[in-house]
Amino acid sequence: MSAFAIGVDLGGTSLRVAAVDSQGKMLEKITTNTAVATRSRDLVIDEMCGAIQQLTSKFQNDSNHLAGIGIGVPGIIEMETGTLRWSPNLPGWHDYPVHAEIERRLGTKVILENDANAAALGEKWLGAAAKVDDMCMITLGTGVGGGFVLAGKVWHGMSGMAAELGHLNVERNGAPCNCGSRGCLEQYASATAVKRMAMEAVAAGNAPEMARAMKASQEFNSKVIYQLALEGDEPAREVFRRAGNALGTVVADLINILNLPMYVIGGGVADAWDAFAPSMMETVQRNSYVYLATAPRENAHGAHDDAGQPPRRSTVITRARLGSDAGLVGAARCPWLHQKMN
Amino acid sequence: MSAFAIGVDLGGTSLRVAAVDSQGKMLEKITTNTAVATRSRDLVIDEMCGAIQQLTSKFQNDSNHLAGIGIGVPGIIEMETGTLRWSPNLPGWHDYPVHAEIERRLGTKVILENDANAAALGEKWLGAAAKVDDMCMITLGTGVGGGFVLAGKVWHGMSGMAAELGHLNVERNGAPCNCGSRGCLEQYASATAVKRMAMEAVAAGNAPEMARAMKASQEFNSKVIYQLALEGDEPAREVFRRAGNALGTVVADLINILNLPMYVIGGGVADAWDAFAPSMMETVQRNSYVYLATAPRENAHGAHDDAGQPPRRSTVITRARLGSDAGLVGAARCPWLHQKMN
Repeated sequence: MSAFAIGVDLGGTSLRVAAVDSQGKMLEKITTNTAVATRSRDLVIDEMCGAIQQLTSKFQNDSNHLAGIGIGVPGIIEMETGTLRWSPNLPGWHDYPVHAEIERRLGTKVILENDANAAALGEKWLGAAAKVDDMCMITLGTGVGGGFVLAGKVWHGMSGMAAELGHLNVERNGAPCNCGSRGCLEQYASATAVKRMAMEAVAAGNAPEMARAMKASQEFNSKVIYQLALEGDEPAREVFRRAGNALGTVVADLINILNLPMYVIGGGVADAWDAFAPSMMETVQRNSYVYLATAPRENAHGAHDDAGQPPRRSTVITRARLGSDAGLVGAARCPWLHQKMN
Repeated sequence: MSAFAIGVDLGGTSLRVAAVDSQGKMLEKITTNTAVATRSRDLVIDEMCGAIQQLTSKFQNDSNHLAGIGIGVPGIIEMETGTLRWSPNLPGWHDYPVHAEIERRLGTKVILENDANAAALGEKWLGAAAKVDDMCMITLGTGVGGGFVLAGKVWHGMSGMAAELGHLNVERNGAPCNCGSRGCLEQYASATAVKRMAMEAVAAGNAPEMARAMKASQEFNSKVIYQLALEGDEPAREVFRRAGNALGTVVADLINILNLPMYVIGGGVADAWDAFAPSMMETVQRNSYVYLATAPRENAHGAHDDAGQPPRRSTVITRARLGSDAGLVGAARCPWLHQKMN
């Protein structure tokens, strides 16, 4: 008898629900692009439960059973109570017992996971980190998230708050952050930060091409800035160099702290890999002698993007492979790891 | 039948060997204060093996068996081969197959462990962290070392290089470090750094009391500077504030990364707790919202030094309890954890 799981990715801008088989093959995906953050919480949960039930009915039969349901949620989940403690992108969900409510509506058990942890699980299952047991994922999106998979399992820490990598300090007295601190990674390497740094350069009168692009386009965002960097615009390139330096500072520290075989960089900003990876790798090499002692021999002196079989006991820093599906398939992976069979 | 283990602490300045029973009681300790770093490697190993054999003969009998031998070594040990890959305090030992050599001489198996990891194991077994499963220890000595115990075991990383906490970046373009980077924690929070920062203040003409102490004493060191800080000397207090800020930056990052229940600060400089803890705690509170969300309720706004039963799921930052014996008893703990019976 075969089995499938349902994965849910509850993003700030879209809700996606998928049925995924035990080998990771996506059987069907339902996507709603309406902005989740601005809609009523109850409507979103209705829609989510509806999609879950729709896929369950479609794929569950005598020879294919539902292994479970995993839901990736942005924000900090108190693991014991299933309460969403803090979610900047879902303001109406604060302290909401999301776990209990969804289980009540569906009449079955579900597993909640932080979205960045789910993305790490996805890359570990089917993506860049499929061949290692321990890995770290850094997701560069609207914010910066992180996840650790150690010995094949998510490392949650004592209260589910581990891997808040977006709030590691990279610049003392740097740019102020929503978390209350200053100089957090998120202020340099998120899509929001890339845009802010570009706008600062424009405001300072130092970036004529970016100023033109800002005027010409309704959507002046990190993609537009990356395009300019690709075309050789120096101020745009400098924005990504700063992002790369900040990221390199954090990756070097993570290598010195955990000595893991693989660090995976994902999220939308990772598409600009060519623009930030050189400065990231330079900083990693300067700041981490653990990296220097364990760098892949064949390519120790530059950025690399090889997620194939890594050389034994070397430290690989690489791009994510699954794009925006990482969190979705990672959520679907949760029921198998929890060994809960419904 | 009872059992005991032998622990060895091979420091840069002394060699200590102890017999420790299964409850952690130290049965006997042999200490040599001759500087290990400046003596020939073979002589040191002779002496170590002699002391191990002496204690073994004394305590091993029909009703008390030797559970094993654990040796704490400063530097990076390649776990697979038992080779000392890098040890700034034991320059003649570089790339030396110390594990094989000691086993050859003793004719029995021994377990090698990095000295900072051994200290973490000691505090976990008998000290500040006895009641938690997961902990981090930061040792402020001549250099700065670190160790993680996760789920009761040392986290080595893929090649034994995890927890190089002394080389985490706290100040971009800060003071140059032996590791090749700049602005490492070790350059602000080690005994060496405390002395350097004091000497810089003296050289700048801003520290008349420290200047007097430097002239008056052959041994101008972190203890003398702490004494001045206790007496209210502002430049001496500033030195420890800088150490505390650097330490706080790293502890905040570690809390955001791992969300562990306990961070233990040990080593000689930890004796100056009163002088650096306030600025350390201030920085932790400013930089880590994970700390703020998990700080012990009864004392969330100041430094605290309570290693008793921690409140449930709170983050405790505390002083080590075992002093210089942490590494020695931690080394003796290794054989039991490895479950090797000799």
